[in-house]
Amino acid sequence: MTGLPEPLRSRLHPLDRTLDTLETPAVLIDADVADANLVRWQQRCDRAGVANRPHIKTHRSVAWALRQLELGAEGITVQTVGEAEIMADAGISDIFLTTNVLGEAKLARLGAVASRCSLSVVADSAEIVDAAAAAARAAGATITVLVECDTGGGRCGLADPAAIAALALRIAGSEGAKFGGLMTYPGAGKRLQTEQALQAAIAACRGTGLTVPAVSSGGSPDMWKDDGLEPLTEYRAGTYIYNDRALLSRGTATLDQCAMTVLATVVSRPTAGRAIIDAGSKALTSDLLGLDGYGLVLEHPDAVIYQLNEEHGLLDVSRCSAPPSVGDRVHVLPNHTCVVTNLFDRLFIVSGGRLQGALPVEARGRSI
Amino acid sequence: MTGLPEPLRSRLHPLDRTLDTLETPAVLIDADVADANLVRWQQRCDRAGVANRPHIKTHRSVAWALRQLELGAEGITVQTVGEAEIMADAGISDIFLTTNVLGEAKLARLGAVASRCSLSVVADSAEIVDAAAAAARAAGATITVLVECDTGGGRCGLADPAAIAALALRIAGSEGAKFGGLMTYPGAGKRLQTEQALQAAIAACRGTGLTVPAVSSGGSPDMWKDDGLEPLTEYRAGTYIYNDRALLSRGTATLDQCAMTVLATVVSRPTAGRAIIDAGSKALTSDLLGLDGYGLVLEHPDAVIYQLNEEHGLLDVSRCSAPPSVGDRVHVLPNHTCVVTNLFDRLFIVSGGRLQGALPVEARGRSI
Repeated sequence: MTGLPEPLRSRLHPLDRTLDTLETPAVLIDADVADANLVRWQQRCDRAGVANRPHIKTHRSVAWALRQLELGAEGITVQTVGEAEIMADAGISDIFLTTNVLGEAKLARLGAVASRCSLSVVADSAEIVDAAAAAARAAGATITVLVECDTGGGRCGLADPAAIAALALRIAGSEGAKFGGLMTYPGAGKRLQTEQALQAAIAACRGTGLTVPAVSSGGSPDMWKDDGLEPLTEYRAGTYIYNDRALLSRGTATLDQCAMTVLATVVSRPTAGRAIIDAGSKALTSDLLGLDGYGLVLEHPDAVIYQLNEEHGLLDVSRCSAPPSVGDRVHVLPNHTCVVTNLFDRLFIVSGGRLQGALPVEARGRSI
Repeated sequence: MTGLPEPLRSRLHPLDRTLDTLETPAVLIDADVADANLVRWQQRCDRAGVANRPHIKTHRSVAWALRQLELGAEGITVQTVGEAEIMADAGISDIFLTTNVLGEAKLARLGAVASRCSLSVVADSAEIVDAAAAAARAAGATITVLVECDTGGGRCGLADPAAIAALALRIAGSEGAKFGGLMTYPGAGKRLQTEQALQAAIAACRGTGLTVPAVSSGGSPDMWKDDGLEPLTEYRAGTYIYNDRALLSRGTATLDQCAMTVLATVVSRPTAGRAIIDAGSKALTSDLLGLDGYGLVLEHPDAVIYQLNEEHGLLDVSRCSAPPSVGDRVHVLPNHTCVVTNLFDRLFIVSGGRLQGALPVEARGRSI
C-alpha cells in the first residue's frame, strides 16, 4: 500500500482476499485513477484562480475528503447534515452544506456543527434564512448563508435578481447569520446563461450596498469547459473523483479516467442471447441518466444490461462475438457513481493492479 | 408498544422523537397495516394448502422474518448468502436461497450456512449444481437443490422440460446435494403459462423416475389471483408485507394496505409550479417500474415527482388545488419498497398512529 496517499493508506481495512477471490458484487475503486483525477482538477482550479470545494457526496468517505484537502481544496461541500457531522468528526474545519435545512431536531444538529467548524449553508427563502440564523444563535455560533440562485438548472433557488438581493439583505441583517455570497447549480450545457444570471444577481446585491464574498458554482458535466468560469470564486465538483458512464457519454471523462467499476459474476446463461450477472438494482441502482442500459460491461461492450432485478442484471449478449460463460467475472462501469457508493459500507481499493484493502464509506446512508 | 407483535416489540430501538419531530427523510412503517398484510396472506396460503415461504428481501429485518414464521410460514426465502447468514444468526432454521451462487469464498459461506440450518438453493446449470454440492461436501452438510425453471418470466432458469429433468437427475446423483423439486419466478400475468410449463417440467422429472418434492413459485403481482395455484406446493411473496405504488397500480394492494411511506419535508418552493422535498434518489431510488413519477405524495395526489436528484425530489404542483408550503411535511408512497428499505439502517415503526421505535434493517446492504 506504499503507493497510496497517506489519508487513504491509513484508513484502509486489511483484507484476506485478492482481486481473484473477492466476492461479488464488489465495488472496486482504482485509487491511482481516482487520485490522478483529483490532482488534475486541483491543478485546473489553481490555474484558473478558483477555489476548489469538492462535493463529498460521491465518495462519502473521510479518507478521500482529507486527500482532497491535502491536495489544496479550500474546504468541502456536503449535501446533508449527516454528511457534515461525519466530516466534522474527522476534523474537517470548512464545510459548505448546499441544501435547505428545516425541522427542529435537524436544525439543532446544524447549530452543533456550526459551533465546531466554519459552516456555510444555502437559502432560497426567508423561512430557510430565519431557521439557519436561529439555529446559529441557539448554538452560540455563526452560520454563513449564501443565496441559492436558479440560473437555469430548474432545481432550488431564486431566479429574480431583485428577490436574490432582498434575501441577501435579510441574511446580512439576521443575527447569527452572515451573508456569504451566491451559489448555483447550473443546468448542464448552460454556462453562458449561468454566467449572465450570476452577473445580474451580483449587480443586484451590490446595488443594495452589499459585497458578494463568494460566487459558487458546481457540477461535473461542464467542469472542464474553459469558458464560463467568470465570475466564479469557487467550484464544487463531486463525480470527477470516480467518474461514471454518464460523464463518459458526455465526453467529460475518458474511459481510463473512470475509477469505479462493479465486479460481478456471470451466474446464468439461460439462453444464447441472455446472460445474468449477480449485480442488480441493489448494486448498480436504477439510475439511467438518459442512457441506454444500466451500465457498461467492460469485457463485453456489445452487451446491453437491459433489465435489473434486485440482485441480478440481465444482459442481452446476442451482439457479442464471444459472449461470457457461467463463472466469468466482469467489470461494470455504472451509470451514476454517487448512488452506487451509497449502497455499500465499504468499497475495495485497487492500486497498481492489486487489491489494497477496504475503504469505509463512513457517510453511507447519511441522507438525514 | 404493547399492541405490537412480540418479535417486533422486543427488537425496536427506543426513540426520543414523536412523529411530529422525527427528522426527514424517514421511512415509516405502519406496523398495524404490515402485520394485517402478513396475517391475511398466511390465511390465504393455509386455505389453499400451500406453504408460505415469504421473501425477506423486502424488509431485510429479523423481527419481521420471525413474525412471519410465528404466523405460520414454513420457512423463509432469501436472495443472497449475506441475507441467509443474518437470518441463520437469528436462529431461523429453514432457508431457501433463490439465486445461483458462485465463487470460492461465497461457496464456503454457503456451506457454513448449510451446516447450521436446513438450506435449499436453486440451480439452472451443471456448474451451479456442482458448486453447491461441493460446498455442501466441504462443510459436511447437505444442500437441497431445486431446478430453476423459466416459465415465461425471462430471468434465470431452464425452459426445456428435458433439460430440467436432466439437471434434476444430476442433482439427485450428486453427493452433498438432494433434489428438492422445481422453482420458478413467473412472469406477471402469465399464471396459465406458468402452470402449463411447471406441469410439463414435473412430468419430465417423473418420467425419469424422480419424485418432485416441492414446486415453488412466487411474486407479489399475481399472488392474490385465485386461479393457478395448482400445481404449487409453496409460494414466495415478499413485497406484500409493505406493498408499494407498483402493486397499488396493478390492483394487487389497496392504498390502505400500503404500510411504507417516506416522510419528507418541503424545503423549497422556487416557483408557483415547483416544490422540492428532501427525499431524492438516495431515499426513494430511481425505480420507476413502468410508473409515471417517482412516488405518490399522499397529501397532494395531483403532484408529480418528475425528477429526483440525490437528496431532492422535484414536484410539479401546478395541478394541486392547495399546493404545499415550505416547511410542510408530506408522506410519499414509494414505487418500490424493497429497494427503499435497502438504503436505510433503520425504519421507523408506527402503530396506533404513534411512533413506537426504530426497526433495525440487519440485512441492509447484504447483497454479497
